[in-house]
Amino acid sequence: MLIARVIGDVVATQKHASHQGRKALLVQPLHLDGSDRGTAVVALDAVDAGIGDRVLLVTEGYSAMTGVGRPNSPIDMAVIGVIDSIHLDDPPSPSS
Amino acid sequence: MLIARVIGDVVATQKHASHQGRKALLVQPLHLDGSDRGTAVVALDAVDAGIGDRVLLVTEGYSAMTGVGRPNSPIDMAVIGVIDSIHLDDPPSPSS
Amino acid sequence: MLIARVIGDVVATQKHASHQGRKALLVQPLHLDGSDRGTAVVALDAVDAGIGDRVLLVTEGYSAMTGVGRPNSPIDMAVIGVIDSIHLDDPPSPSS
Amino acid sequence: MLIARVIGDVVATQKHASHQGRKALLVQPLHLDGSDRGTAVVALDAVDAGIGDRVLLVTEGYSAMTGVGRPNSPIDMAVIGVIDSIHLDDPPSPSS
Amino acid sequence: MLIARVIGDVVATQKHASHQGRKALLVQPLHLDGSDRGTAVVALDAVDAGIGDRVLLVTEGYSAMTGVGRPNSPIDMAVIGVIDSIHLDDPPSPSS
Repeated sequence: MLIARVIGDVVATQKHASHQGRKALLVQPLHLDGSDRGTAVVALDAVDAGIGDRVLLVTEGYSAMTGVGRPNSPIDMAVIGVIDSIHLDDPPSPSS
Repeated sequence: MLIARVIGDVVATQKHASHQGRKALLVQPLHLDGSDRGTAVVALDAVDAGIGDRVLLVTEGYSAMTGVGRPNSPIDMAVIGVIDSIHLDDPPSPSS
Repeated sequence: MLIARVIGDVVATQKHASHQGRKALLVQPLHLDGSDRGTAVVALDAVDAGIGDRVLLVTEGYSAMTGVGRPNSPIDMAVIGVIDSIHLDDPPSPSS
Repeated sequence: MLIARVIGDVVATQKHASHQGRKALLVQPLHLDGSDRGTAVVALDAVDAGIGDRVLLVTEGYSAMTGVGRPNSPIDMAVIGVIDSIHLDDPPSPSS
Repeated sequence: MLIARVIGDVVATQKHASHQGRKALLVQPLHLDGSDRGTAVVALDAVDAGIGDRVLLVTEGYSAMTGVGRPNSPIDMAVIGVIDSIHLDDPPSPSS
């Protein structure tokens, strides 16, 4: 899963039936320091996440469908958790 | 899902039977500012999207097959929604 | 699907049984201007594509297996169409 | 699988039910010399890995679900082994 | 599939049961000129590949599980062929 932040949402009236009733969130993947990690993507919401929340993002189809409770749907990304805290215990060292 | 724009289409007469009757769209993934995000890809159309439409693009096989209603087909990308509007509520901040 | 060109083939005698009887093509993904998009990959042939053909490449396991008619096989890329023509109607504009 | 190091963990109280009872580890993929390979990701733990451990990371949904014994769950990354040692026999040469 | 070279192996005693009895190879993906393509990954061996062999690497979960004969296992990469020769017939031209 990626760490991401909810930054908006997307409205599409002409869409696949399986997306009805689920909010399509615009989410920005983040680096550990909170800076942007690539470009924002669109993910269906499975946990009532709100704007500004730091969330867990799944980016694989089968996982995403399951996350929103809609197997056999064209859904490849979903927000499946709201992050309370991140504990960083040991920054990776350059020596193995 | 990625935000993308339909910029053309692809014709292939010698192709897998499961692709018959579905338009193969040329779609350009976009950044939030509308600029190109990498190179255009080919996706089957599930929502009668037209040239110039901003669309939702799934880029995973199982999702894409389901989107166009053809499970067990060699389809790994599909256009599954036409975007009406994008609401950007909160640009990601560099501090977590 | 990606647009790619067939540039060669790969011979492997010691291989998984499911690959027997299918040509392993060396295919180069392409940008829209025909230039190389990353490095060439190896894909099984589902449509009797020939050297130099511009083709449609699926790059996802389940799609690829289905494309060559061999579910439950270790195949993650397949050539599933020969492209006749690409129509580019509307270059993406930088404004959304 | 990728080689990675466990560098922390993530707490999310509002999350998908399938994640209950499994630790969400923060893992940093590594290059062979032990330096960072991209940004850290979040993976469920299947082998009681600890902070600082070098681990095997699967980054695909179906594999990850299976690794943690929870099929049909929104899990796309999992820690499925603790690495004891890496044997590097032959650095890749530039000539094929 | 990617072209790769076997450059070592990885030992993990604390691991998922499905990995028992299969060698975990360290494989380096290659460009066509034999130079490194990104960083080495860990793949299970399905064809008794040896150190130094040029091999075919699948990098997708379902394909990889099938390749090593262990469906429902946390395996997302596998070595499924030993390459005898690569024929490069037609370098991609910049014009389409």
